[in-house]
Amino acid sequence: MKPTSNRTRQNDPEGLRNRVLDVAADLFQMRGYHATSMKDLIQATGVSGGALHHHFPTKKSLALSVIADRVAPAVRQTWIDPIRAAPSLARGISGVFAEITRAADAHGRVAGCPLNNLALELVLSDADFRNAIDAVFVEWQSALAERIAETRGGALLDRAKRTDAAAFIVSVYSGAMTLAKSKQNASSLRSAASILSYWLREREFA
Amino acid sequence: MKPTSNRTRQNDPEGLRNRVLDVAADLFQMRGYHATSMKDLIQATGVSGGALHHHFPTKKSLALSVIADRVAPAVRQTWIDPIRAAPSLARGISGVFAEITRAADAHGRVAGCPLNNLALELVLSDADFRNAIDAVFVEWQSALAERIAETRGGALLDRAKRTDAAAFIVSVYSGAMTLAKSKQNASSLRSAASILSYWLREREFA
Repeated sequence: MKPTSNRTRQNDPEGLRNRVLDVAADLFQMRGYHATSMKDLIQATGVSGGALHHHFPTKKSLALSVIADRVAPAVRQTWIDPIRAAPSLARGISGVFAEITRAADAHGRVAGCPLNNLALELVLSDADFRNAIDAVFVEWQSALAERIAETRGGALLDRAKRTDAAAFIVSVYSGAMTLAKSKQNASSLRSAASILSYWLREREFA
Repeated sequence: MKPTSNRTRQNDPEGLRNRVLDVAADLFQMRGYHATSMKDLIQATGVSGGALHHHFPTKKSLALSVIADRVAPAVRQTWIDPIRAAPSLARGISGVFAEITRAADAHGRVAGCPLNNLALELVLSDADFRNAIDAVFVEWQSALAERIAETRGGALLDRAKRTDAAAFIVSVYSGAMTLAKSKQNASSLRSAASILSYWLREREFA
């Protein structure tokens, strides 16, 4: 017997919540927040309107969960964890760019950075969105600043200058990804990685 | 006698078109394309639905005109013209960042770069949007690459490397503006300008 969507919810509320978050994260990434309606989400997930509203009473609450439970983990998985695990900052950054470039080439499509996409669409509209998005940028910058502190060049800088250097790295990546998305190819990411790698060596942030 | 909106259109169609483009550019910048309805535009401009549709039969046609007649000129006025007129590339770039930072400080609010905002929201959804937006990025990059060619360091590079360096400058600015918008202050623009200025001197792109 095929379970009804109501039974699915009662039997596996966590699974249903995860399915909604996966689909919402994907639609927000490909179309944007405002271009995705709750009706689109009901159709794309197959969950009932009641079940969707039980987990996410408003579209805003859904988006805040997407930021906390999908976008922030994506930034950790793509950027923060590899940077922390890398033998050096420079090799960590090269590895991150190489992996993102490889993925863009493989997909033949550049969907962009989910954090940057939601940032430009949402931060002006709502303080909760802004705080949630900025917190992810801060976490990302802090992880980079920590690794910068461990380098020969970074050890010579004060905390504020290390934070500036970390923001610079995030900016280069974010901007290069915007160009890559606009051109629908990874060339700007490849050239940014090469220029950034040279810059890191020169600043002794390697 | 107060003119009706219909008379306004008949008497000054160019003025009406300009008013709609000004308001649409502002709403797209502050809220985004999808969060702005044709009804919002009718209310904000005071023009009739008939007059609006006469000039812009679809929201897409309006957005393409906003890109061509408001966003592209804004990039020219803010970036391209000052870079072309500056005594050197480095001084041109410092001046652009200083002016944008000053404006952000004066407004107490960072609305972001109109080109980047529309790029992240629209390029995946429609090829016409993507082409229109990419053309502005290409014009911006080309103006920078031309000035790079005139520098001592740039003269040593081939055309592809100069284009890469230009894309890097656009990326740094675009990414730093995204951070500035997320934080609602200009600190990331200030620190990016300082790091970029150092980089330009080192590459002899000054």
